[in-house]
Amino acid sequence: MRMVDLIRKKRQGGILSDEEIDFIVRGCTDGSVPDYQLSALMMAVCFQGMTKEETVRLTLAMAESGDTVDLSEIDGITVDKHSTGGVGDKTSLVIVPVAAACGVKIAKMSGRGLGHTGGTVDKMESIPGMQTALDKKAFFDVVNRVGCAVIGQSGNLCPADKKLYALRDVTATVDSIPLIASSIMSKKIAAGSDRILLDVKTGSGAFMKTQEKAEALAREMVEIGAGAGRKTVALITDMDRPLGHAIGNALEIIEVCETLNGRGPEDLTAECVELAANMIYLGEKAADMETARRMAKTAMTDGSAFEKLCEMVTAQGGDASYLRDTGKFTLGKVQRQVLSPESGYILRAHAEQIGSASVLLGAGRETKDSEIDFGAGIILHKNKGDLVKAGEPLATLYAESEGKCLQAEKALLAAYAFGEKAPQGHPLVLARIE
Amino acid sequence: MRMVDLIRKKRQGGILSDEEIDFIVRGCTDGSVPDYQLSALMMAVCFQGMTKEETVRLTLAMAESGDTVDLSEIDGITVDKHSTGGVGDKTSLVIVPVAAACGVKIAKMSGRGLGHTGGTVDKMESIPGMQTALDKKAFFDVVNRVGCAVIGQSGNLCPADKKLYALRDVTATVDSIPLIASSIMSKKIAAGSDRILLDVKTGSGAFMKTQEKAEALAREMVEIGAGAGRKTVALITDMDRPLGHAIGNALEIIEVCETLNGRGPEDLTAECVELAANMIYLGEKAADMETARRMAKTAMTDGSAFEKLCEMVTAQGGDASYLRDTGKFTLGKVQRQVLSPESGYILRAHAEQIGSASVLLGAGRETKDSEIDFGAGIILHKNKGDLVKAGEPLATLYAESEGKCLQAEKALLAAYAFGEKAPQGHPLVLARIE
Repeated sequence: MRMVDLIRKKRQGGILSDEEIDFIVRGCTDGSVPDYQLSALMMAVCFQGMTKEETVRLTLAMAESGDTVDLSEIDGITVDKHSTGGVGDKTSLVIVPVAAACGVKIAKMSGRGLGHTGGTVDKMESIPGMQTALDKKAFFDVVNRVGCAVIGQSGNLCPADKKLYALRDVTATVDSIPLIASSIMSKKIAAGSDRILLDVKTGSGAFMKTQEKAEALAREMVEIGAGAGRKTVALITDMDRPLGHAIGNALEIIEVCETLNGRGPEDLTAECVELAANMIYLGEKAADMETARRMAKTAMTDGSAFEKLCEMVTAQGGDASYLRDTGKFTLGKVQRQVLSPESGYILRAHAEQIGSASVLLGAGRETKDSEIDFGAGIILHKNKGDLVKAGEPLATLYAESEGKCLQAEKALLAAYAFGEKAPQGHPLVLARIE
Repeated sequence: MRMVDLIRKKRQGGILSDEEIDFIVRGCTDGSVPDYQLSALMMAVCFQGMTKEETVRLTLAMAESGDTVDLSEIDGITVDKHSTGGVGDKTSLVIVPVAAACGVKIAKMSGRGLGHTGGTVDKMESIPGMQTALDKKAFFDVVNRVGCAVIGQSGNLCPADKKLYALRDVTATVDSIPLIASSIMSKKIAAGSDRILLDVKTGSGAFMKTQEKAEALAREMVEIGAGAGRKTVALITDMDRPLGHAIGNALEIIEVCETLNGRGPEDLTAECVELAANMIYLGEKAADMETARRMAKTAMTDGSAFEKLCEMVTAQGGDASYLRDTGKFTLGKVQRQVLSPESGYILRAHAEQIGSASVLLGAGRETKDSEIDFGAGIILHKNKGDLVKAGEPLATLYAESEGKCLQAEKALLAAYAFGEKAPQGHPLVLARIE
């Protein structure tokens, strides 16, 4: 088998066989297929697409290209969750304890933030003492004892995906639905859970700018899950505006605690109920979605989910007293209010631009090696659709220096647009694909 | 400027600016743009094409990426010729002396054979003593003295094209018309001639299998020539069957001598008259094509072109006595007649397959480093359209061993097909594009 023939086949719109896909992924992993052939193939896939069968095979081959996690030591149905990434998206840290409090087993590996989107692992590390690099035994032990654990990606997980993703990033071949879908699903499958919940974001702050594209990606991933024997459900959720009020690591942990004590922002709370209910449903702890929603709401108000978060944090070495008294968190020593320059309805609170403003404050990473300032970030007082008067505070910025605040203020203001009529609202959860 | 943005632009169907194309070619030449980005871009070009302006700029940038030949030391209009490659295509060695005998100046750099097609430099080297690696001074001196010289490509000509071509070859991105056109024309432009004659082959033995594609490629190259200020004419010629009778290096030189003495095969003679007439016309030695044709025919029968070939060979160190007495050439010591297995009209004499049979005999190269046996090859006694009786000789094979002949006989017979009705004939020169 020669790689050049497989590239030609795909370029001409042909369908790659299982053996051909295995050859490509093996060659990618062991380095026997050079990068310039892989990138040419990826570009051909961008134009010609892949069939469902090709995408499933690519996903499985990438999942098996490195270590795979065997969760059979964990009792009960394990459910994983993945978000395509958003601004202010702290839902994982809310719904994992909610679902665990309802009896679902969650052994989750999460990522770090890059660019305008944050990452769960970074957020957790703003809790003093919190360990996100547990070994397998400790990881499983926490899950069995507490019901849930969230750690960073470790080991040699999906090396073929890692290499292909890095290549796609520098060859403008990221945004191909079969390539995105197989990349995400290969990591979820390697991570070992029985069931998978996907949160596919759409809107200005999301990778998928339109609902149509988000649904296409979601359908592809749900199909891959089915093809791989891992039942998968996807929610399409709005990321046209930031989710909740807080953007930034410690700030988001504080908002997570509020939400788990029944005092969270309305939008975040509502979205977390839907996500958690789906995890409970996938984990077979409720017979129908209505029951699952009720269970999630109860856990978010009776303190059981908050206690579960404290238990998990403690089990992972974190100081849970910060969660019980969030005033202990050190926030940016410079705090600056951003005032509305206009009166009227907020027509736009562009999620990606606001996310980028938070990166300027130090809350995120420009590049993989940037350091994060856990205390930096933004509290939004007004979001899209709100009515505001000129001079009223739009947001509070937190950073280590006045200079960073001034830079971020400029970026933040550019993200807002005002008008006389209220913009059309749309639901937070736009669709559910099973 | 970031390469990833340029790849994305082309992927999305955008038009690259002059500065962007220069950036890419510079990065290709100095290695600052990695191969995996170049190959992704080439694949995007295969799908999205390039405008005439982009193609001209790419050609010029590649032409200027290395050494360029300055032919201003040569008096008169210099005319170059390029063929896209065929089987039995020895036209260059006929028309160069014909045009030179008519006063055209030709300083030509030619290539070597690869795969089923032969190369002019290899053919010349079958003449004992022939030097094809002259330095610039000696090269110009021969052109000024004799009127023509043919040498191998030397120096650092078009390094960007060299690198891109090697990449395209292994990433299934060879057959893109703007990429082929710019690759060919960059080398012709760097080679310095004022005018360019292109012989674009079409049919089973050609890279362009259909006349439509051959014409598209020819038009693109003629436009590039115009854009670069080098007047270019292209002929579309038939390569569905081998040209002439001889395939193989010394065998083809013998056929060149026959043709220059007015005794060549009809098809080869007719095609050479057209090609030579176009060189004479481009070199402004005739006011119109009819006059140019008459001049070419005269030079091919009055001995003046043959004497010009002998002069050139002598000036390049070759032993012209071999041309005057072609019986001196050493041919393959094993000679084997291939007999027709059937009676009827020859419906097919598949040029590429017959070319591959000649490679099996030792007349061509499987890979760049293969050695050539100058005395090996095929004399075709019957070609497409001929009537043949079972048992009549189709061809004579020349090689150093019986084993090679047996292998080649099998391949040769597979290239022929027979039938009761004569196949439809078509002209050798299918179109002329100016």
